[in-house]
Amino acid sequence: MNFASDNVYGVHSQIINALAEVNSGTAPSYANDDYSKKSEEKLSEVFDREVRAFLVTTGTAANGLSLSTITPGYGAILCHTESHIFWDECNSPELFTGGAKIMGLSAPGGKLTPAIIDAKLKTLVRNTHDPKPKGVSITNASELGTVYSPAETQAISDLIRPRGMKLHLDGARFANAVAGLNCSPADLTWKSGVDVMSFGATKNGAMMLEAVVFFDASLAEEFSHRRMRAGQLVSKGRYLGAQMLAYLKDGLWLENARTANGLARELAEGLLRHANIRIPNPMQANEVFAVLPRSLSEKLLASGAKFYGWADDSLAADETLARFVLSFATPAGDVKKFLGLVKELNA
Amino acid sequence: MNFASDNVYGVHSQIINALAEVNSGTAPSYANDDYSKKSEEKLSEVFDREVRAFLVTTGTAANGLSLSTITPGYGAILCHTESHIFWDECNSPELFTGGAKIMGLSAPGGKLTPAIIDAKLKTLVRNTHDPKPKGVSITNASELGTVYSPAETQAISDLIRPRGMKLHLDGARFANAVAGLNCSPADLTWKSGVDVMSFGATKNGAMMLEAVVFFDASLAEEFSHRRMRAGQLVSKGRYLGAQMLAYLKDGLWLENARTANGLARELAEGLLRHANIRIPNPMQANEVFAVLPRSLSEKLLASGAKFYGWADDSLAADETLARFVLSFATPAGDVKKFLGLVKELNA
Amino acid sequence: MNFASDNVYGVHSQIINALAEVNSGTAPSYANDDYSKKSEEKLSEVFDREVRAFLVTTGTAANGLSLSTITPGYGAILCHTESHIFWDECNSPELFTGGAKIMGLSAPGGKLTPAIIDAKLKTLVRNTHDPKPKGVSITNASELGTVYSPAETQAISDLIRPRGMKLHLDGARFANAVAGLNCSPADLTWKSGVDVMSFGATKNGAMMLEAVVFFDASLAEEFSHRRMRAGQLVSKGRYLGAQMLAYLKDGLWLENARTANGLARELAEGLLRHANIRIPNPMQANEVFAVLPRSLSEKLLASGAKFYGWADDSLAADETLARFVLSFATPAGDVKKFLGLVKELNA
Amino acid sequence: MNFASDNVYGVHSQIINALAEVNSGTAPSYANDDYSKKSEEKLSEVFDREVRAFLVTTGTAANGLSLSTITPGYGAILCHTESHIFWDECNSPELFTGGAKIMGLSAPGGKLTPAIIDAKLKTLVRNTHDPKPKGVSITNASELGTVYSPAETQAISDLIRPRGMKLHLDGARFANAVAGLNCSPADLTWKSGVDVMSFGATKNGAMMLEAVVFFDASLAEEFSHRRMRAGQLVSKGRYLGAQMLAYLKDGLWLENARTANGLARELAEGLLRHANIRIPNPMQANEVFAVLPRSLSEKLLASGAKFYGWADDSLAADETLARFVLSFATPAGDVKKFLGLVKELNA
Repeated sequence: MNFASDNVYGVHSQIINALAEVNSGTAPSYANDDYSKKSEEKLSEVFDREVRAFLVTTGTAANGLSLSTITPGYGAILCHTESHIFWDECNSPELFTGGAKIMGLSAPGGKLTPAIIDAKLKTLVRNTHDPKPKGVSITNASELGTVYSPAETQAISDLIRPRGMKLHLDGARFANAVAGLNCSPADLTWKSGVDVMSFGATKNGAMMLEAVVFFDASLAEEFSHRRMRAGQLVSKGRYLGAQMLAYLKDGLWLENARTANGLARELAEGLLRHANIRIPNPMQANEVFAVLPRSLSEKLLASGAKFYGWADDSLAADETLARFVLSFATPAGDVKKFLGLVKELNA
Repeated sequence: MNFASDNVYGVHSQIINALAEVNSGTAPSYANDDYSKKSEEKLSEVFDREVRAFLVTTGTAANGLSLSTITPGYGAILCHTESHIFWDECNSPELFTGGAKIMGLSAPGGKLTPAIIDAKLKTLVRNTHDPKPKGVSITNASELGTVYSPAETQAISDLIRPRGMKLHLDGARFANAVAGLNCSPADLTWKSGVDVMSFGATKNGAMMLEAVVFFDASLAEEFSHRRMRAGQLVSKGRYLGAQMLAYLKDGLWLENARTANGLARELAEGLLRHANIRIPNPMQANEVFAVLPRSLSEKLLASGAKFYGWADDSLAADETLARFVLSFATPAGDVKKFLGLVKELNA
Repeated sequence: MNFASDNVYGVHSQIINALAEVNSGTAPSYANDDYSKKSEEKLSEVFDREVRAFLVTTGTAANGLSLSTITPGYGAILCHTESHIFWDECNSPELFTGGAKIMGLSAPGGKLTPAIIDAKLKTLVRNTHDPKPKGVSITNASELGTVYSPAETQAISDLIRPRGMKLHLDGARFANAVAGLNCSPADLTWKSGVDVMSFGATKNGAMMLEAVVFFDASLAEEFSHRRMRAGQLVSKGRYLGAQMLAYLKDGLWLENARTANGLARELAEGLLRHANIRIPNPMQANEVFAVLPRSLSEKLLASGAKFYGWADDSLAADETLARFVLSFATPAGDVKKFLGLVKELNA
Repeated sequence: MNFASDNVYGVHSQIINALAEVNSGTAPSYANDDYSKKSEEKLSEVFDREVRAFLVTTGTAANGLSLSTITPGYGAILCHTESHIFWDECNSPELFTGGAKIMGLSAPGGKLTPAIIDAKLKTLVRNTHDPKPKGVSITNASELGTVYSPAETQAISDLIRPRGMKLHLDGARFANAVAGLNCSPADLTWKSGVDVMSFGATKNGAMMLEAVVFFDASLAEEFSHRRMRAGQLVSKGRYLGAQMLAYLKDGLWLENARTANGLARELAEGLLRHANIRIPNPMQANEVFAVLPRSLSEKLLASGAKFYGWADDSLAADETLARFVLSFATPAGDVKKFLGLVKELNA
């Protein structure tokens, strides 16, 4: 019963198989192979417009490189305090942007709002003493398992675009957001004002694969140099291209996300049957954040279930916020088994 | 007949298979899996002493991260003008070191010597106007297909160690050097004064895998932060660990290198049977650099053979320097076929 | 009546004169002149021990360069949210440290405490996802006009030193702190655990001059390279050295600070005679932060007095927090005149 | 007899006096004072068109900040191997540009030519492996005492402008070039295709002052943030503004340069009267590079004259290349005295 993260699970069999399928013979190196090229075409199909797409191996690299196209070192990126770029990447955005300020803003449910962003922007007016606000980064699905709707995304874009700022989307769990909202990838991105995104695949079935996808083509212009400089241009590029093609083929990426989201829903519904468990935020993707009695949480962990506690100052001393992440590969039986365990231990 | 590079070939079947073999179930993420941990142990066995080893996805990242441990931004790294860090990585070492100067020195046969390094160091004495020399980086096997012997490596170390400088080894084709010299990995590294190396696997059979291997443990102390910050900590680490374990198992890495080196020797011997073809430098690894009549080179390329021309100011106008790279996966028949073609076209 | 900042006032006449006095003849360039060298000796006398001291032209540079000696790019510096390095320097610490995280912590009265620092350190334990905490920076006198006593400074050092962290002191108004506490410069720095400081002179009478002063000599080892790289090694160094010598001569620096502190005390006492004005924090240096009725503040500004409002969420809507900075050069009559104006307008 | 550099001399009396003249009363800080603002107007007059001008304290900062506006970290700047940005600034351009490659090209007489630049550009075509060439930096007067004419400057601009590259001018001794060519500042800059320059003042009479002057206004757009971030926004800005106004007033800057150039000419002519002394390059500014018998050079130095030897591989073993720099403040008698010494010792 491992709900620690979606990245503790393996690679989808179709993606593993794809690696073997492209293995024979030669292919041009450094992303000049056909698989890498076709990835861009397929992503254009997925997004229902021409996009520029560059494959990299980690979400950290995808985020940092994305942000490097929208802010110089004297700029600022506004984001949520729970976001990976603020809180989980050991100064990686600072490295790739040349020292830009990553400003974390607190906001309920893991989601920024135009009002919260606007309030911060109103303080950044002391001319050269402040860094220049250059962009906003949102995560969808968010780090707290919630999602931004197209309208919510658009509202943020409407606020910042007139100020010359760009909108970045950290889509480490983008598939889960699309599946959760049942909208189109286009609706949730460029049609709502997103300029550049980190299109995640690793957590949702790939091995090591993310794409930086540009909707604002001007940002992509010299991106191949940025990727090379970052040590993210793999020489045997076909193995990234092949992963992406398999990931997108016949909607595997959304199918995986729907599976994970469905398991999350099942888990959430089971937990909510207990009067002393609550789920504070809307559950819209593949993560369940539940407030449990601390004693119950400890017993569950002691029984071998794996999940993480999350810091939350608003809780009572005998409560804990637990995060459960579901994967396409989580055994369906594990959810049932875990709910049984909760029932048993929640005396 | 593709001799363009060793990275145009695929992944060794045992390594592809290893990915599938570790695919089931869960594994701790972010390099906390058993495969990643065992990689370090196995590399310690390979090098016949305890080493610290960190897996990354590209040689560019391995080099830049290695150098970041030996120089601050106000320092300088001395290397050959043909070296990847000077010439092929689009300012990546500058990114990871925070702006250190990568100083390329010309030297025959792609190899630095103590005399050439010393001459440069003698000019870097203008106190704070010059960057502080912090290290030397050598490539073994070199970019011109030659190798540094243990004695040659030691001589460089002997020059720089008393000056507080460190020695980095770019081992993108380290296996080919070890196989070519028929010495031990230990002899060619820490026993000869190497402090940190980029241990290459991709070109020699892996998919996307290099290791930063530290012989000077003090340099490794906070390296895990550096790797994370560089976007090189893959979340599903088992797929790097599994590649490395398969690469090292039963000496596959040296076997692959011997195969490639053998093909290179065969090609070289065949070419040298022609009076109008010469090989200027010792041929000691898996690359053949041959001077051909320009017309012959053009005919070979027109016939579909793939290889690169190399800049060389010392040649006559009707000559060209051609680079042929051999891989463990180069079909043996291709070398014979190519030699036949040379015979046919070299009228 | 200009209380906007101490940097709106000019240069002390003895310092201006000193520039003319050193102007004839030649002097070795790039800080090799006698005046620059003697500055280090004089600062050693001031601090009652041997120090390493490097002259630069701005406090921003002094801070960024100081911090660059205690943190790599993957590290974190903890400081107050009001501190200049967090809030006023447009990502300059990020530039000079190569992208370190500057973490602002809220704390009452502009002063960090061991408890507040410790609480933050307890969250930075997620291995490589978090930057490595490398130092704490305190400002003395603080940005809110308060001071850290030697004991308070020592308490912070005692917390962080065992963790391998260093203590930086932003001393843009260090003279005012020393004068306010009536302690020795040594007591407030190395005897209390400070490792490196920005020793301010510009705000307190110099033209453009700060010194980076090292008590931990190991941090200073290659600092001259850092200063050069930062564009802070002025070629005609005698004009920085001469400023510093004049600033320190016969205790001018402390005399200036005592004058400014005295004026601040006079202003504070005058304001506190009004029942509707309060001064929330201890007033210990040359800045007065007073809570005024908003209407009074507006009338004072309209009358031509210059001072800044300061953001403070804790105030009532009809109140404002006003900052008054006093300089050695503030005309004594201006304080009296201003207090008269307050009396007149505070109906 | 100090010919070591122009920066060993002091500040022109009119500039020293100007500091005292602006010293009374208050002035807005951080370059918002009238003197800083008027500097920009006066520089616009000097250049006979509207320019954007930003004052900084060192030439190293002026260069690095200038270059930061024309290249990102993955770019390259081409310059002469003798240029300060390549050879004298301890990786400062790398710091301010975020790691761009500063590529030094050898060329006779310290001057780049379109042919030499073009030959280098033809090698930078390997897509993302090479940094992207973003600009060329020339120094006028050059580090070898020669000058670029307007036509020579224009020819370089004509080569690179169509490639989207920008032209930077390091004008540490710009006044000497203008005086030497007897052309207008406009002719030598924007009328010849210069986009941004470092306008030097320190070597030619100021205390610590350079300006970054933009002819391409788009490059200047967010420059105030760059200057702040670099620690180059001095708080008491009036003392930079006052220096610049005095430097430009009534053509003092050109008068100083003409004085220095005249002394250089006198020295050169005197040296050339000796059959065993030659001056290899045209002498067009305030530096004399002369080839002397090594024994003579040693005797002159032993007699107390100060000048530097310069590396030059093309000389005979018994020759040395000596650099003599003349300043507006070099005593005229020193040149005569030195020539007398040469006569005496050159037996």
